[in-house]
Amino acid sequence: MSRLRFRISISLDGFVAGPNQSVENPLGVGGMRLHQWALPLAAWRAPHGLPGGEVNESTPVVEASLANIGATVMGRNMFGGHPGPWDREKPWSGWWGVNPPFHHPVFVLTHHPRDPLVLEGGTTFTFVTEGIEAALEQARRAAGGRDVSLAGGASVARQYLVAGLVDDMMLSLVPVLLGSGERLFEGAGDDLHGLELVRTVAAPGVTHLQLSRP
Amino acid sequence: MSRLRFRISISLDGFVAGPNQSVENPLGVGGMRLHQWALPLAAWRAPHGLPGGEVNESTPVVEASLANIGATVMGRNMFGGHPGPWDREKPWSGWWGVNPPFHHPVFVLTHHPRDPLVLEGGTTFTFVTEGIEAALEQARRAAGGRDVSLAGGASVARQYLVAGLVDDMMLSLVPVLLGSGERLFEGAGDDLHGLELVRTVAAPGVTHLQLSRP
Repeated sequence: MSRLRFRISISLDGFVAGPNQSVENPLGVGGMRLHQWALPLAAWRAPHGLPGGEVNESTPVVEASLANIGATVMGRNMFGGHPGPWDREKPWSGWWGVNPPFHHPVFVLTHHPRDPLVLEGGTTFTFVTEGIEAALEQARRAAGGRDVSLAGGASVARQYLVAGLVDDMMLSLVPVLLGSGERLFEGAGDDLHGLELVRTVAAPGVTHLQLSRP
Repeated sequence: MSRLRFRISISLDGFVAGPNQSVENPLGVGGMRLHQWALPLAAWRAPHGLPGGEVNESTPVVEASLANIGATVMGRNMFGGHPGPWDREKPWSGWWGVNPPFHHPVFVLTHHPRDPLVLEGGTTFTFVTEGIEAALEQARRAAGGRDVSLAGGASVARQYLVAGLVDDMMLSLVPVLLGSGERLFEGAGDDLHGLELVRTVAAPGVTHLQLSRP
């Protein structure tokens, strides 16, 4: 069974982005602090076309999060939608350039119908207006038996979580406080919707908590 | 140097108590879920006068949190103050009966002066009206070279944290969502005030994160 998997970096006080998110600063003020543990890793650098890097306890976590993924689902804001750098003269094609690092079908949740966007390297963006279940169904079909990655952002991830559709959630808990910003679990209720803590990985600057559906 | 140490159970969404805290239910609705990992432990049962219990990866964490403590500081609500079961006819003497489990001097932050309360087994409650620094200073003096335990609640703990006075904070992170209630870090800003993650302990139903001043 193809599983819906989700990994996100989160602060001790529950934020996944800092305040004042914008097109120029999509992580919000201080949000970059959530990702410092990952940037030096060879496992992070390689998919971004960068040589070298470190190997540490986070390496297998990052590698596993990228392995056996056949399709991705993401929200409109993560792709970059209204309001944002859309432009009818030159349609927005995502943040990732002409050869995005996905290399598989990506399904973007949106309220604005749009033809699929075929880019280089195997990445096709398909725009889904029928909601989260339809997007997941299309992604599962496209994944050809492999898993589906839930790329975010937080709002879409929370919708899938609350609907009980997330099978595996890796929280990369970073020992910082952001103080304000976007909370992953805001309004998610008092229930993990069938997920249980199955694994903890201590690594430099981060503790990974894997919560899975048994 | 006598250190100020603090251990607290916290949910994935950052709550240390559920909503609707009251004298009858000081942990709030669902707040008991934060403590289920500790209750079966022999290390928890023994100080409460209960026989038997389990030993697991949490045992050394609980034992260490109780070891080498010479005095305790706590807030008014944790002791039980206004509004609460105070009664001039029969002064409130805490939640813990005639022989509280502290067995050392306890300093209660309050706005209401009161004579010290000497109970059995070495526990004396001293009421401090001059603020958190005065309470810590008195506790350090009383501790005779041993450490001072910051018992809570969350509001007082946050005051000490923001003032940069906490030397060691053990977060017992419980993989549940409470959805609402009291947040440990609400209003604590975007700074851990000199604390760094130094240790992670994975245990049944909980992940302990130790943050210390280097």
